[in-house]
Amino acid sequence: MLTRMDSKDKEQLANFVASRHQEISSDVLFKVSKILEDVRKQKDQACKAYTKQFDGIEMDTFKVSAEEVKEAIQSCDPEFIQALKKAKENIEFFHRAQLQQGYCLQKEDGVYLGQRVLPLQSIGIYVPGGRAQYPSSVLMNTIPAKIAGVRKIVMVTPPNPQGKIHPNIAAAAQIAGVDEIYKIGGAQAIAALAYGTRQIPRVDKIVGPGNIFVAAAKKLVFGTVDIDMIAGPSEILVIADEEANPSFVAADLLSQAEHDPMASAILVTTSESMLESVNEELAIQSVRLPKQEIVKASLRDYGKSVLCDSLEECVELSNAIAPEHLELMVKDPEKLLEKVTNAGSVFMGYYTCESIGDYFGGTNHVLPTSGTARFSSALGVDAFIKKSSFLHYSKKALCHFADQIEVMARQEDLEAHARAVSVRKEECR
Amino acid sequence: MLTRMDSKDKEQLANFVASRHQEISSDVLFKVSKILEDVRKQKDQACKAYTKQFDGIEMDTFKVSAEEVKEAIQSCDPEFIQALKKAKENIEFFHRAQLQQGYCLQKEDGVYLGQRVLPLQSIGIYVPGGRAQYPSSVLMNTIPAKIAGVRKIVMVTPPNPQGKIHPNIAAAAQIAGVDEIYKIGGAQAIAALAYGTRQIPRVDKIVGPGNIFVAAAKKLVFGTVDIDMIAGPSEILVIADEEANPSFVAADLLSQAEHDPMASAILVTTSESMLESVNEELAIQSVRLPKQEIVKASLRDYGKSVLCDSLEECVELSNAIAPEHLELMVKDPEKLLEKVTNAGSVFMGYYTCESIGDYFGGTNHVLPTSGTARFSSALGVDAFIKKSSFLHYSKKALCHFADQIEVMARQEDLEAHARAVSVRKEECR
Repeated sequence: MLTRMDSKDKEQLANFVASRHQEISSDVLFKVSKILEDVRKQKDQACKAYTKQFDGIEMDTFKVSAEEVKEAIQSCDPEFIQALKKAKENIEFFHRAQLQQGYCLQKEDGVYLGQRVLPLQSIGIYVPGGRAQYPSSVLMNTIPAKIAGVRKIVMVTPPNPQGKIHPNIAAAAQIAGVDEIYKIGGAQAIAALAYGTRQIPRVDKIVGPGNIFVAAAKKLVFGTVDIDMIAGPSEILVIADEEANPSFVAADLLSQAEHDPMASAILVTTSESMLESVNEELAIQSVRLPKQEIVKASLRDYGKSVLCDSLEECVELSNAIAPEHLELMVKDPEKLLEKVTNAGSVFMGYYTCESIGDYFGGTNHVLPTSGTARFSSALGVDAFIKKSSFLHYSKKALCHFADQIEVMARQEDLEAHARAVSVRKEECR
Repeated sequence: MLTRMDSKDKEQLANFVASRHQEISSDVLFKVSKILEDVRKQKDQACKAYTKQFDGIEMDTFKVSAEEVKEAIQSCDPEFIQALKKAKENIEFFHRAQLQQGYCLQKEDGVYLGQRVLPLQSIGIYVPGGRAQYPSSVLMNTIPAKIAGVRKIVMVTPPNPQGKIHPNIAAAAQIAGVDEIYKIGGAQAIAALAYGTRQIPRVDKIVGPGNIFVAAAKKLVFGTVDIDMIAGPSEILVIADEEANPSFVAADLLSQAEHDPMASAILVTTSESMLESVNEELAIQSVRLPKQEIVKASLRDYGKSVLCDSLEECVELSNAIAPEHLELMVKDPEKLLEKVTNAGSVFMGYYTCESIGDYFGGTNHVLPTSGTARFSSALGVDAFIKKSSFLHYSKKALCHFADQIEVMARQEDLEAHARAVSVRKEECR
């Protein structure tokens, strides 16, 4: 049952969705900073100690051998492997279009300036272990980096009690093009990637989801290395018109709700009867789900519905919320898309359920959550490049503009800046 | 006098440069979080109280009137205004080439997917007050946002004891295209931009340099709004060949050193005699500078020189350090540029001193410091856009790929994800 809200409560609803994002407690930050410090100083020795403490296993060598990867893949469901390969193809197709070119602009007097686009040299991908395993995340994080031209892609993931990694994760890593896999998880894995150890290489950027300790570690090493955004609880907002199928709408809301008791599912519609039918469908469909308890909690606490006068009003409401996932279950989604200003990823029409995008369609599923789509973007090739500018002034150009540059420097009281120009001006006569 | 280091000490030198970046103390964070909390709850009332406390002035209205801006500009040096206008033209010319287009890819069976490039809707620019005033920073922060298509550009800057802002800052804001200026500074200004007050609008992103309290406030509001990077002490690395003019080299090193006692100036050269001549020039030129004390401290603590066997080795060393500013004072800078993998901005040849880029050339002067050029970029149009993806599957395409998507969802134990597909499959028969 979705809690009904009024379309006038736009701000309130937006704040509600955003407020699910919780700060990491200072207690966790303190514990994690100790782990980081230990790994920074004692390197592999600390990695081994923490792996024993947290994963309950003694590891001598963290690196996963080619043999182990091969065996793992052979134990996977072949249909799953086929699906992974097709998904990879689609994700590559979508992300290849994001590759950017540098530029160089020529001006008179021998002036030229421009920008080079360079790949990061190495990145680390964190992949959570434990019961939940998400091979799709391995594809989503690795493929854009590969396309960007990153030379070394390193994956870390905690070992299970047998000292192995999940075969599906190994398969996804192999298919996506990960170069090296290390069996280490938690804050110690983040520390190893940020500082480097004898066994585990230091990287330029760390991406991928993890528990609160991993999130805290990423936050703390940011600056030493780059990180991706730290995701909050996720959300879906479905805009449905009169013709949308309530059973589809309910199924899509449930697919979000099953992630997390804090996940939010919001229905915004122009149809009074849709609200009722979707609630009925939610009741019917949810009892058949294995993750009933999570779904129930999520819908109770974070499931909302709003009736609007027009589809335009629906989009305005959605723009205020800036949802991670937006489904436009309307007759003419293209027309509506033009009005969408804030959304991580948009799913168009009656047949594009979010799960197509989560796994298969090609768009990235690493998206800004909790309203941060107002100012941030899906993970993509951009996350794995950097831009470096260059500028050339000839003697002639320097002489021509020297006075103006000096004026600006002196107005800012930076005399040495002005003199770097003046000293060259002596050659202008 | 630059401290001589060995080219073998690449890692050590890189760590030395990076280590200047200091964490914000928990004491400062604590004080600032109190200010943020007060502004979030008491809005303008808290803004007024803190402005009185920190800037020593009672402000009723924070907004700067059009009248005040006009008067300010009339009091500026007309030559300075001319230089600002020319600089603006150059900065626009460089940044316009950064505008990105979205894309849409069509596939068979009615599948299409793509990415839209959207401007942030509103941004805030922090401009420090006090004795130092940097109108060039106003241009560098505003112009890329304007080109990105940001609708509302808000500037905040502390009032002086007379309740005014510096005329040069007002002029730069007007020329760059700032929409609204508010006379408020410190952590209270950042809080106002992040949460909004009756007088001061909430924005999507806050950029611009500030003191430690401003930096702490930006760090703390990150997530509620986006922020730019928090800059550390800046640095220059000059690669000079035998033919470089030691007097130019010294002048450029000094222009960096005058910024801050923690600024770092590094000379890397293939010429033994260059090391000596530059030291002599530094001694001669530095005594004539108004900021002698700062320069002296900076060169003493963070001035380094390294002799390398080849220009290639010079670049390798530079790549390890990833300097904010890199000058290639060599005969063929274009050839060397190709080998540069990590640098914020590169200044090419004997006549392109860094100050051309700081003020006038067109490239941005907001650059990654302290080695973060390994993974981050100069400020540019990218900082003021976001990318939003979209995906459309027709019924036919959904039916065709349904099984593969279900397999992937079920392997991840996300049954509701699979059912969002299954429920639609009923229409496939």
